[in-house]
Amino acid sequence: MKKAVILLSGGLDSTTCLAIARAQGFQCFTLSFDYGQRHRQELEKSILISQKLKAHAHKVVKVDLSSFGQSALTDNIDVPKGRSHKEMGEGIPITYVPARNTVFLSLALAWAEALEAYDIFIGVNALDYSGYPDCRGEYIDAFEKMANLATKKGVEGKRFTIHTPLLHMTKAEIIKKGLSLKVDYSLTHSCYDPRQNGSPCEFCDSCLLRQKGFEEVGIKDPLSFK
Amino acid sequence: MKKAVILLSGGLDSTTCLAIARAQGFQCFTLSFDYGQRHRQELEKSILISQKLKAHAHKVVKVDLSSFGQSALTDNIDVPKGRSHKEMGEGIPITYVPARNTVFLSLALAWAEALEAYDIFIGVNALDYSGYPDCRGEYIDAFEKMANLATKKGVEGKRFTIHTPLLHMTKAEIIKKGLSLKVDYSLTHSCYDPRQNGSPCEFCDSCLLRQKGFEEVGIKDPLSFK
Repeated sequence: MKKAVILLSGGLDSTTCLAIARAQGFQCFTLSFDYGQRHRQELEKSILISQKLKAHAHKVVKVDLSSFGQSALTDNIDVPKGRSHKEMGEGIPITYVPARNTVFLSLALAWAEALEAYDIFIGVNALDYSGYPDCRGEYIDAFEKMANLATKKGVEGKRFTIHTPLLHMTKAEIIKKGLSLKVDYSLTHSCYDPRQNGSPCEFCDSCLLRQKGFEEVGIKDPLSFK
Repeated sequence: MKKAVILLSGGLDSTTCLAIARAQGFQCFTLSFDYGQRHRQELEKSILISQKLKAHAHKVVKVDLSSFGQSALTDNIDVPKGRSHKEMGEGIPITYVPARNTVFLSLALAWAEALEAYDIFIGVNALDYSGYPDCRGEYIDAFEKMANLATKKGVEGKRFTIHTPLLHMTKAEIIKKGLSLKVDYSLTHSCYDPRQNGSPCEFCDSCLLRQKGFEEVGIKDPLSFK
C-alpha cells in the first residue's frame, strides 16, 4: 500500500479528503495541528475521525501560530457573522491566519519525507474558498514545485505530489462525494466560533457555507438542530 | 525603518546574516526554533546574539520536528566525524532534517506577514553547504515564488523577498564579512554534537568547515582551545 499524509482539521472538507485518499487505496497518515486555535474541539474530532476512517496513524503537532497574532481564529478578534455569499467573495476575511497552509503543508512534507510517503492530501477548495490565498490551485502548484527542490528525496529523484481532490468542487459536490464514501458528517465540525456546549454558531462564514451545501444536496446537516 | 525577519540559529552563518541585515538598515526581528534539536545551546546563544546585535525583537517558536525522526540532529543517530571535504561533498548527510528550512521559512513568512515585514533573511550557503537540498538558490527562488502566492499581503500586491546574502560566499568570505561588521564570533556556535561542557567536538562537518574558514582567513577561531 502506498502511504499518504492527509492534513486533517476535522472539518467537512478535510474529512471528505481523507475518505477520498482511502478510497484511492492509500495507507493514510493523518496530521492535525495544535496551533493555538480558539476552538480546540477540532483536535478531538480529528482523533475520532482518524479512528473511524481507519487511518494508519494520527499525529498532532504543536506549532504556536497564535503568537504571531493577526487572525480571528487565533486572537481575541470577533469572527464575522451573518455575511451574504457575495460579501464572503469580497476580499480576504479576518479569519485568514498568516501563512497557515504553508506552515501546515511544510510540516506535512517533513513527515512525508520521514515516512517515505510521496503523496500529501489537502482539502482546499477554490470555489467556496472564502477568499483565502492559500487555497488556490496556483499556490498549491508553487508549493509542490518548491517541495521537490527542498527535500533529500526530491533531489534523489522521488516526486512529491500535493493532491487537492476538492479544489474545483462546490460544497454540495463535496458532501455528495463524502456521502457516496459513507462519511458520517455528524463526526465533523465546521464552525469558526462554536458555542460553549460545542454546537455550531450557525452564522459564521463556515457555518453558512456548510448550511448552503447541505441545502443544495437536499438533506439535513446532522449537526443542525433546526 | 524597514522591518525584516531573520532566521537565527546562533551559528556563524545566521549571525553574520543578522549583522548584514542590520548594516543594510533593517529593523531586525530574529526568529529561532525549539524543534527538538539535541544540542539546545543554540537557543541560549540566539538570545544573547539578538541582544548584542540589537535586534528589535527575538522570538522562539516551538515546533517538534523530532517527532518525525530521520535525522542525526534530532534523533539518537551518531553524527559523522572526521570526514574530508571531499566526503562532505558526496550526497546528503544524515544531519539533514526533513524539510527543515521549509518549515522554518514558512514560520518566518507567517511572522513577517503578521508584522508587515516583507524581507526575510536566511543564512544558507551553497558553497560549503554540506549537501543540503534546502540551501540552494533554486530552492530559495521557488520558496519566494510560493510565498507571494500564499499570503494575503502577496495577493494585495506586496512582495516578499527572501534574502540569502551568504549564498555564494565561502566560509572564509563569510567570516571576513562578519569581522568587517564587528561580529564577535565567540558568541556563536557551530558544532552538531557539542561536548557536555558545551565546547565544540571539533570533528563534525560543521566544526571542520568552521575551522577551515578561520584557517583560510588566517585568524584563530575564538571558540578554539588549540
